Amino acid sequence: MKASAKTSGGNFFEDFRLGQTITHATPRTLGEGERALYAALYGSRFAPQSSEPFARSLGYRGAPLDDLLVFHTVFGKTVPDISLNAVANLGYAEGRFLKPVLAGATLRAESEIIGLKENSNRQTGVVYVRTRGFDQEGECVLSYVRWVMVRKRDAEASIAEELVPELGPAVAADALCAPAGTDFRKADFSAAGSAHLWNDYEVGEKIDHVDGITVEDAEHMLATRLYQNTARVHFNQHAESGGRFGKRLVYGGHVISLTRALSFNGLANAWVIAGINGGRHANPVFAGDTIFAWSEVLDRSALPGRDDCAALRLRLVATKNLPCQAYPDRDPSGRYPENIVLDFDYWAILPRR
Amino acid sequence: MKASAKTSGGNFFEDFRLGQTITHATPRTLGEGERALYAALYGSRFAPQSSEPFARSLGYRGAPLDDLLVFHTVFGKTVPDISLNAVANLGYAEGRFLKPVLAGATLRAESEIIGLKENSNRQTGVVYVRTRGFDQEGECVLSYVRWVMVRKRDAEASIAEELVPELGPAVAADALCAPAGTDFRKADFSAAGSAHLWNDYEVGEKIDHVDGITVEDAEHMLATRLYQNTARVHFNQHAESGGRFGKRLVYGGHVISLTRALSFNGLANAWVIAGINGGRHANPVFAGDTIFAWSEVLDRSALPGRDDCAALRLRLVATKNLPCQAYPDRDPSGRYPENIVLDFDYWAILPRR
Amino acid sequence: MKASAKTSGGNFFEDFRLGQTITHATPRTLGEGERALYAALYGSRFAPQSSEPFARSLGYRGAPLDDLLVFHTVFGKTVPDISLNAVANLGYAEGRFLKPVLAGATLRAESEIIGLKENSNRQTGVVYVRTRGFDQEGECVLSYVRWVMVRKRDAEASIAEELVPELGPAVAADALCAPAGTDFRKADFSAAGSAHLWNDYEVGEKIDHVDGITVEDAEHMLATRLYQNTARVHFNQHAESGGRFGKRLVYGGHVISLTRALSFNGLANAWVIAGINGGRHANPVFAGDTIFAWSEVLDRSALPGRDDCAALRLRLVATKNLPCQAYPDRDPSGRYPENIVLDFDYWAILPRR
Repeated sequence: MKASAKTSGGNFFEDFRLGQTITHATPRTLGEGERALYAALYGSRFAPQSSEPFARSLGYRGAPLDDLLVFHTVFGKTVPDISLNAVANLGYAEGRFLKPVLAGATLRAESEIIGLKENSNRQTGVVYVRTRGFDQEGECVLSYVRWVMVRKRDAEASIAEELVPELGPAVAADALCAPAGTDFRKADFSAAGSAHLWNDYEVGEKIDHVDGITVEDAEHMLATRLYQNTARVHFNQHAESGGRFGKRLVYGGHVISLTRALSFNGLANAWVIAGINGGRHANPVFAGDTIFAWSEVLDRSALPGRDDCAALRLRLVATKNLPCQAYPDRDPSGRYPENIVLDFDYWAILPRR
Repeated sequence: MKASAKTSGGNFFEDFRLGQTITHATPRTLGEGERALYAALYGSRFAPQSSEPFARSLGYRGAPLDDLLVFHTVFGKTVPDISLNAVANLGYAEGRFLKPVLAGATLRAESEIIGLKENSNRQTGVVYVRTRGFDQEGECVLSYVRWVMVRKRDAEASIAEELVPELGPAVAADALCAPAGTDFRKADFSAAGSAHLWNDYEVGEKIDHVDGITVEDAEHMLATRLYQNTARVHFNQHAESGGRFGKRLVYGGHVISLTRALSFNGLANAWVIAGINGGRHANPVFAGDTIFAWSEVLDRSALPGRDDCAALRLRLVATKNLPCQAYPDRDPSGRYPENIVLDFDYWAILPRR
Repeated sequence: MKASAKTSGGNFFEDFRLGQTITHATPRTLGEGERALYAALYGSRFAPQSSEPFARSLGYRGAPLDDLLVFHTVFGKTVPDISLNAVANLGYAEGRFLKPVLAGATLRAESEIIGLKENSNRQTGVVYVRTRGFDQEGECVLSYVRWVMVRKRDAEASIAEELVPELGPAVAADALCAPAGTDFRKADFSAAGSAHLWNDYEVGEKIDHVDGITVEDAEHMLATRLYQNTARVHFNQHAESGGRFGKRLVYGGHVISLTRALSFNGLANAWVIAGINGGRHANPVFAGDTIFAWSEVLDRSALPGRDDCAALRLRLVATKNLPCQAYPDRDPSGRYPENIVLDFDYWAILPRR
């Protein structure tokens, strides 16, 4: 029996067209409650997001919502249109956070299909989308590209036009947006929890974030619903019991947020995520797994027009059930061992001397 | 040993009197936090509840709280007085939502005993109550009848006066209250997630809501405490281990809310629950069960004084561990198979052309 | 391999100095969302905290946040500096809540080292700290002493100066702060859920709070992260699998809050926690345990300058997997049986006639 005509089963690979723009439902107001829930789900302690007066002391108009809460909310809106029939989320690029989002903002999302490439087996294809999140004033707060492998409804269906877009390997530092109107030198660093500023980090430096945190099904489902992300693999144990893993898969973004919160220990002043250069969910995470993380400083850059803050390009590697004091990494052939679950490449903004 | 005189053990069947009015403790302020938690517990995506600007574009003074959050809050207040010694919650009728409730409202509840009928075994009796929820301005926001089987403290106790009230089979469409001051035609339906308006639904139409969602103990307990519902069967594994099912029972209202959120896929513009005609918790739900749902259009009606919106009478059937593409239903003798957990009959208001 | 120099591993016993003052990171804004989450985590029903209009009717400027939410937030801030290397949390004393905290407040914390006593095995020592929580106006809202056994990094390290501070056995009633500007006689006691006022309780009276509530891992981790408490034993199943208990330990404060919410049944008008005289986490609590509680009235006292309210000194005893109708207690030798998990001695303020 076929689903009712009023029920959306999501798009399949052959439903997308190059250049197509999709307006995603549903706009979402993020308020004080979402801020608190995000705090409880991850235990994040970065000072501007934790304290209204601390944020105002830097020049923010209020405590900014966590950048990843913005990311997950925008991402969640795209799922019913882009990835309901996805096999795998393959990568991210060109992510830029353009404006702080405060409690009370309402976010909506649009995506443009910028690439399509059918796989040789004709069962699936890779869809490249540039997604933009806008606030209630119509300003773009986030832009990023992701690519995802999507099933075809009909293997025989032909694809009108294919293109693999060229994507930059990393966001250029001069394309990063430090929050307008702020002066990070005004901070009380004892309140922030660390005296280590941008100047104190060196390229090549590695940091073990020490702590581990175990994931529960109730937690990742609460989080993923908070983001209105409807991807089925996270919620439906009845279906997953007969699936590839036999259990519900934790939303990859939940792992990024857990790991980001763990990174406070060693990167307490990395207050702003300004860019996403790339990201790979190297292995699946399930309830019961304990997540650990380490970071590596990949690059350092001044920011145009700012002498109070600067950017670090960081690689955030997360593992499951494996502490990170030995900085576990890919093997010589480039393969990820089964304990590495995330390899995330981003730009953070820190105060500088 | 007997409970202290200051501890409430709840009312037993012989404690109720026909015509008695009970003022329930404790008034409850529902704010931005409750709105966000409700979103995270169910993942609801109906646009007016999700987006403040969307709600205002229709003429609401702000994003209304989910109607079922209002229902559960009012219901929760009645539990310590009405159903702490209940054996079973038997039914609902004559439910009317009279006014949108916005974040910041404070709800209190009163119940009137409108029926009493002792069972022939003299161990229990059925209590019929009409419950009203009021906001901080003293206006009634919700009125409904429920009946519940309650234990007697003393089988020998006599009952002063008995009466089985006459209850309408369904709320008349002209008794439904569309939100005052709104114009549903002003909506941006691409933001709302569906172009299907009231006009597009036919009586007899069935909709499989496709997705399934698994329930966890932590989730239903968080929800049920959010509603200050103190019914013991939801919380006390120590006692339930030796009880009828060996485990904690999920609050029936949690299942209604999960199912309502699933119904977005197919009924995305059913923004308002205006009436509850009936409802039956056909089988118990436990942690680990995966809930699916389908809907049937029972009736359609214009609304007096409104040409921007109209009402659908909908039957929402929920199952556990059974997808609904075949619309599982009662057997020919009228019995519910063990996989059907909810049969809920309500009026929704949708925009019309 | 050693942790990076930028990663905090917490202080060890020999790192503390008598008289030292520690400013803890990170300031934390507690808003509407934290209020709602606290409600959902514990199901508390005390009227001033539950209803904004009820609180205002007493003279509060708004609904006060639960006193224990304030306590846990301040406590959480101290963990990274004081107890990251703790073996056991030994006791509390001289706790005073000095000012109601409303949604929107930002709390920060400072601790003074008031005692140090190395243990004879030289592996550990006891640290006594007086911690103060301040709001965004710089006013002290909470002050308490706790002592905790902390590991030494190096058993050979010598301790400059030792002192065991003298701590009062209980906070004097005339040191308690009833909320300024309030008149508790103005309350609507049917809304509050009980007509039992301060006058109705007698010294020696015992109250079984009847209900039990089962704890889940997702719940206590959400709570403990909400408080930004980073103690590792609550979060890391990978490490705890090989630890003393084989599982994650529930934060003791979570048990206090659960028990306090249960105590509504019998102490519905004990609206304010004004003092903490002492507290002992007698046995560990794990996910799956069901918590019960009983209270004993230890003392009664008028409050200087107030004839609308007065104080009860209460002992709140919590058990796991053992209902409390028989008031389970220490054995004749003073030892706690394994089912008793908490023995908490506090002052509550109730309305009086």
